[in-house]
Amino acid sequence: MSTFGEYFKVTTYGESHCRSVGCIVDGVPPGMELTEADIQPQMTRRRPGQSALTTPRNEQDLVEIQSGTEFGVTLGTPIAMVVRNKDQRPKDYGNSTMDLYPRPSHADWTYLEKYGVKASSGGGRSSARETIGRVAASAIAEKYLTLSHGIEIVAFVTSVGGVHMFPPSATHPSPSTNPEFLSLIESVTREKVDEFVPVRCPDQKASDRMAEEIAAFRDRDDSIGGTVTCVIRNVPSGLGEPCFDKMEAMLAHAMLSIPASKGFEIGSGFGGCEVPGSIHNDPFVLAPEVPPLETGATRNGLSRPKLATKTNNSGGIQGGITNGAPIYFRVGFKPPATIGQAQQTAMYDGDESGKLEAKGRHDPCVVPRAVPIVEAMAALVVIDALMAQQSRQVSRSLLPPLKATTPAVKAMVDGEEQGVKCVLK
Amino acid sequence: MSTFGEYFKVTTYGESHCRSVGCIVDGVPPGMELTEADIQPQMTRRRPGQSALTTPRNEQDLVEIQSGTEFGVTLGTPIAMVVRNKDQRPKDYGNSTMDLYPRPSHADWTYLEKYGVKASSGGGRSSARETIGRVAASAIAEKYLTLSHGIEIVAFVTSVGGVHMFPPSATHPSPSTNPEFLSLIESVTREKVDEFVPVRCPDQKASDRMAEEIAAFRDRDDSIGGTVTCVIRNVPSGLGEPCFDKMEAMLAHAMLSIPASKGFEIGSGFGGCEVPGSIHNDPFVLAPEVPPLETGATRNGLSRPKLATKTNNSGGIQGGITNGAPIYFRVGFKPPATIGQAQQTAMYDGDESGKLEAKGRHDPCVVPRAVPIVEAMAALVVIDALMAQQSRQVSRSLLPPLKATTPAVKAMVDGEEQGVKCVLK
Amino acid sequence: MSTFGEYFKVTTYGESHCRSVGCIVDGVPPGMELTEADIQPQMTRRRPGQSALTTPRNEQDLVEIQSGTEFGVTLGTPIAMVVRNKDQRPKDYGNSTMDLYPRPSHADWTYLEKYGVKASSGGGRSSARETIGRVAASAIAEKYLTLSHGIEIVAFVTSVGGVHMFPPSATHPSPSTNPEFLSLIESVTREKVDEFVPVRCPDQKASDRMAEEIAAFRDRDDSIGGTVTCVIRNVPSGLGEPCFDKMEAMLAHAMLSIPASKGFEIGSGFGGCEVPGSIHNDPFVLAPEVPPLETGATRNGLSRPKLATKTNNSGGIQGGITNGAPIYFRVGFKPPATIGQAQQTAMYDGDESGKLEAKGRHDPCVVPRAVPIVEAMAALVVIDALMAQQSRQVSRSLLPPLKATTPAVKAMVDGEEQGVKCVLK
Amino acid sequence: MSTFGEYFKVTTYGESHCRSVGCIVDGVPPGMELTEADIQPQMTRRRPGQSALTTPRNEQDLVEIQSGTEFGVTLGTPIAMVVRNKDQRPKDYGNSTMDLYPRPSHADWTYLEKYGVKASSGGGRSSARETIGRVAASAIAEKYLTLSHGIEIVAFVTSVGGVHMFPPSATHPSPSTNPEFLSLIESVTREKVDEFVPVRCPDQKASDRMAEEIAAFRDRDDSIGGTVTCVIRNVPSGLGEPCFDKMEAMLAHAMLSIPASKGFEIGSGFGGCEVPGSIHNDPFVLAPEVPPLETGATRNGLSRPKLATKTNNSGGIQGGITNGAPIYFRVGFKPPATIGQAQQTAMYDGDESGKLEAKGRHDPCVVPRAVPIVEAMAALVVIDALMAQQSRQVSRSLLPPLKATTPAVKAMVDGEEQGVKCVLK
Repeated sequence: MSTFGEYFKVTTYGESHCRSVGCIVDGVPPGMELTEADIQPQMTRRRPGQSALTTPRNEQDLVEIQSGTEFGVTLGTPIAMVVRNKDQRPKDYGNSTMDLYPRPSHADWTYLEKYGVKASSGGGRSSARETIGRVAASAIAEKYLTLSHGIEIVAFVTSVGGVHMFPPSATHPSPSTNPEFLSLIESVTREKVDEFVPVRCPDQKASDRMAEEIAAFRDRDDSIGGTVTCVIRNVPSGLGEPCFDKMEAMLAHAMLSIPASKGFEIGSGFGGCEVPGSIHNDPFVLAPEVPPLETGATRNGLSRPKLATKTNNSGGIQGGITNGAPIYFRVGFKPPATIGQAQQTAMYDGDESGKLEAKGRHDPCVVPRAVPIVEAMAALVVIDALMAQQSRQVSRSLLPPLKATTPAVKAMVDGEEQGVKCVLK
Repeated sequence: MSTFGEYFKVTTYGESHCRSVGCIVDGVPPGMELTEADIQPQMTRRRPGQSALTTPRNEQDLVEIQSGTEFGVTLGTPIAMVVRNKDQRPKDYGNSTMDLYPRPSHADWTYLEKYGVKASSGGGRSSARETIGRVAASAIAEKYLTLSHGIEIVAFVTSVGGVHMFPPSATHPSPSTNPEFLSLIESVTREKVDEFVPVRCPDQKASDRMAEEIAAFRDRDDSIGGTVTCVIRNVPSGLGEPCFDKMEAMLAHAMLSIPASKGFEIGSGFGGCEVPGSIHNDPFVLAPEVPPLETGATRNGLSRPKLATKTNNSGGIQGGITNGAPIYFRVGFKPPATIGQAQQTAMYDGDESGKLEAKGRHDPCVVPRAVPIVEAMAALVVIDALMAQQSRQVSRSLLPPLKATTPAVKAMVDGEEQGVKCVLK
Repeated sequence: MSTFGEYFKVTTYGESHCRSVGCIVDGVPPGMELTEADIQPQMTRRRPGQSALTTPRNEQDLVEIQSGTEFGVTLGTPIAMVVRNKDQRPKDYGNSTMDLYPRPSHADWTYLEKYGVKASSGGGRSSARETIGRVAASAIAEKYLTLSHGIEIVAFVTSVGGVHMFPPSATHPSPSTNPEFLSLIESVTREKVDEFVPVRCPDQKASDRMAEEIAAFRDRDDSIGGTVTCVIRNVPSGLGEPCFDKMEAMLAHAMLSIPASKGFEIGSGFGGCEVPGSIHNDPFVLAPEVPPLETGATRNGLSRPKLATKTNNSGGIQGGITNGAPIYFRVGFKPPATIGQAQQTAMYDGDESGKLEAKGRHDPCVVPRAVPIVEAMAALVVIDALMAQQSRQVSRSLLPPLKATTPAVKAMVDGEEQGVKCVLK
Repeated sequence: MSTFGEYFKVTTYGESHCRSVGCIVDGVPPGMELTEADIQPQMTRRRPGQSALTTPRNEQDLVEIQSGTEFGVTLGTPIAMVVRNKDQRPKDYGNSTMDLYPRPSHADWTYLEKYGVKASSGGGRSSARETIGRVAASAIAEKYLTLSHGIEIVAFVTSVGGVHMFPPSATHPSPSTNPEFLSLIESVTREKVDEFVPVRCPDQKASDRMAEEIAAFRDRDDSIGGTVTCVIRNVPSGLGEPCFDKMEAMLAHAMLSIPASKGFEIGSGFGGCEVPGSIHNDPFVLAPEVPPLETGATRNGLSRPKLATKTNNSGGIQGGITNGAPIYFRVGFKPPATIGQAQQTAMYDGDESGKLEAKGRHDPCVVPRAVPIVEAMAALVVIDALMAQQSRQVSRSLLPPLKATTPAVKAMVDGEEQGVKCVLK
């Protein structure tokens, strides 16, 4: 259905031409300061060609909090958010030949197959406006992630068509072994990425070539896809469930739910399948000392993991569970289905004789616009896994310390050597 | 947690050294003939180097149905299945230096970070034995999918290390535009795939080269990854939810939940991001007439979709919803973390001075073993989406036919032209 | 959290003084005609002393559909509904001694214990306004239940304080054995009940005595509780899950979630615990022939059950599953906690020296207002169970007919005698 | 389906004559000592006429932990438990006239209506054996509740037929106002209750009269129902969700899911509907100082609530949320449907001419056997609500302290006076 998350539960609603789009977020921690000002910036970044971070604002898609806060503080109850649709009236034409065609590689036909009815306007629920509710919800999630753990989520464009920021090579079938890439994901910020609006590739040369690629496709009335890479820093260890709901599984689920996405890879990804195990394995080292962040976790005496990995081909996840290293992944987006060329395709009634004419100008590449949506979905995954793990940890903290049940030479509990048999052994 | 699916709900349990592993499947349709003989073949195929289809059986991992059937017929109540662990006793050593190391790129350390305790034996819940419950459950799903819709799910190995069955090229950045690939996925069967055990790549030349690649890594005490491609044929149109639970999102979730998986791509995938929209779009054509399958759907008068697509870069899914074309996707698996070389890595206590010694011989490439597990997870996704859609359709079928509410020239309901405004328009 | 239902999923939001209250309903069958006019009447009936059925309308709490319909037809996508709060501004006083007291038997204190923060205004999420979203959602459910199966849900007041419509007696410890009661639940309608607004007890004498009782408590600045009985007619057989989610368990859950409810009993209820089994058992009889209703079920050839029960102490449910007889149950509501008397009670800080003064006039008995909310929650339970069962039935309908697997003299499938061993036998 | 709980998730399986019955429990806190010895006592108490507490054990229904523990300590992974069925073979007769009748007020007919097939043996999934999995799971829950918070759950029989331990009177329409009742629920223990096996009413006189009542019905080949009251002590404040999943709603759901239950009332219950609000309201007082329990909560510095209520008509729950006072409720159970008299009832095929003969001897009153099952379901509700609240609290604890956002005279956060406007104010 239209709900995501178990602990931080987001339910979205809305089509392209109904009264409004929005969401209800259930499970928001109580006692957090929150107003629309926390949410609007990502809403604005979601709009084409906009950066709330680096450009003067052009406020549209204004979000209104309906419930769940009072005097700017969350109450712990469901937070509903609404963004009005400017053009609420579904089309009432009935005379256009265009309406007789299901558009190729759009959702027109599959929606009709699914529901038997469909919204008259192009997108309906498959419209990009559907992502508004997701982005609004994730802004709340991000605020919590920052305050509690200093978690940072940054996405950026890594390829447009055949133009790659880190093209695969014999030495580096995956960027995961490339120090330049690893250095970038340690340091890249949203501000940096938005300096490169509208391309959002934080490298001047690559950005320029991508802009050219996009222009070339625009000039041909064609479209092109690309990829977005996302990094999540300062994630606690221990997030993710061991079986079906592994951390990478939830991220994959989230990313493939974004319109037009075609692929997901975690850490070394598909390229990593070509790297020998002896190189791909991430050996453990003693974690370097870093000054603690000013976060709730620090205030509560929660420390970063004792061990780190020397390399990070795992992308911060092992056995489905985070190890504290940066999580990074890549998402592929297909070329937009709406193109400026007429297309030979059948009508709903099977008539194959005509052509679907193009209408107006269209965005030849949506990958830069996907950046805040990738970040949004990442935030929803992380907060849900974080709350699940916090829940597990607090439940364990109320149990008596384990006593030795059988003799053991050297045993581990919570990473500490103890006289406990049952555990690590 | 350890549950997958909303309608066909699978909950698994078990570690590598506990009494048994297994699952409870809730939501199995009542009145289906089912015995252990329906389940055992995929259990056997799951074991290393085995094919229940092409080789004499070597029955291990015998599954026992505990409940939910009587006289070989499903009752509609939960079906529990149990497979005993041969070696139930967790290790009681306490003297091996090996136990002082979290193994690199294994789950030892992250489990301890997550739970504070961990199973003494290597894998625990991250062991490959955990997938037994999934495979058992999916055998039930597959039987239903076959009987009701003639759905076929076939996975096969498409690369080992740098050896690809369909290497990306300038002409075909994605195999989705390659007629040879498209022809293969229309026709490949499990029997064919298992002729190529242990490699499971249904092409003699590619299979031979992959076998050599695996041997080379084995000889170097190293390991290597690879990819599995899976096709699902005869899927009804209309499956998948429009927002978070798109069909490809559920498949991605399922595939990334398989141990050692690193990536997922649907249809044209990452390669498709480099294909122009004008080529990538799948135009509609009138669906070719095919003899109806002998299935429950046919007996109930359910017909295949009226339209088909000329190409299939979408991989059978548009807007998150199936269009009736074959669904195909690719999954990447990393090189196994267990290798026959000593590794410099820190102990649990941070001691970085030693080396983790290798133990015994290990499988240098697990990709062929992933084949039945990929099929299993695909089946669990498809049956859940199918039951969701059947539920929606039947709920709609009890509503009165729509009357015209506003004038319209040509409008569509269920793909039929009608005097109804509200719908397609 | 704030979600109810698995198939017809309702998520509500809103406090007493936020911008709006409302809900998102996910899973509404597509292709059903639906506008605000279908929803408003129950919204109006929910308001104090109002009947949209028998009195001139006093439209407040106007509901606005935000999404999920177009041209008055449901799209199958989530339907969001919003009702604006008139007085959106939470109180900003800070000088009233009243705010220093948690009100006895209100939720002030437990909310603060739960969340650490609470809404400044009295009710917050525990306000009766929270039920607006439920009633709006259920109006959609009810439309579907009527169109598809002719299901009727009618609730009415059966006691106020010690004044009972059917007082327990030695002969009838439960009204379930009282023919007068059984006749009433077969025939009572909402129109009839609303003739007795504001008491909503469809019996002149009882209604008059209840009105007196309420007046007496009002005059004493006190309050009093009572009970509501609800009947659901024309329910198909087979609804409800056998284990945790029995039909009566879901109804009990739903009813005890209504503010101020204190008890639930199904069928013969607590009184039935005093009736001998020989009388309490409901013997089967051949179901009387009745003219089929004009419903979707009838159009689709679905028939009513072949057997009926002679008596109905079970309240239409056996083993957690409906048998097609009317479901009836009773819900108890406590006296309102807000009374017109000063109360000796401690302040938040533990100060026990003062008294909480009464403020203004209050409703001495809310039981009549509970009537549409009981109906609403009943509808949400029934539609969810109905959709679950429709889903199961359609999944089974696509399986091949069962063949005899072992010899049998007389066996039953779907209530028909067949040569099948496995089934009823 | 067959799952209960969101955080402590129990999935049960099993019919009366399949291989085994049991469950999977997902979400058990890791690091808790647990063996079969923790589980067996309640399993034994569940058997007719048995008390593992006061009588020599008669071990049957031996439970075997399959997974999720190692060396007697929970791993945090799913715990599967299995209890073998002694008589695994479903009946293969086919010649008994009894099989042609659906038994009155049993689930035979509704199961067949629901699934189209049913288990040949009497109960199938509606058998009392289905509760074995629940009781096993709850024993784990109870261990956690005791260790972490010292929570005690005790149920006992309060009526059999017309014989009541606390008969309603004009003075006390509900026992909630009766000091004798309140004193009992403060002190009653399972040991005390089991001294009164087989009746389990912890009062000699009432117990004797109940035994007589049961004997009288037995002698008449008839059956009789009764009620069970349950108290839960030492529950933290703040448990329960404000809207649909109020604490009493979850308890009602759980109790009405027990076979043969007919009603549920919380605190003052139905009787409380006849008590004036001025008496029914529970005024707050400063909580009396009590020596802290030796629990995880105490070790972690969690304190009991600052306020208590002088009376407890609310049954420990206000606005759906616990206030720290004892939770108590009553559950009604109908007379057993199996009686020793022939019954005039129709056959499956509608034939009304015969009689269903009685078979053997049957238990005339199952209420005493319901006692451990009521306790079990109560434990499952409490642990789920507890884990939900612990999760919420820990998520809040990582947020920065609230700063004053508007001036205020006296405001409350966490029950402490602070310069914060937004909160209680």
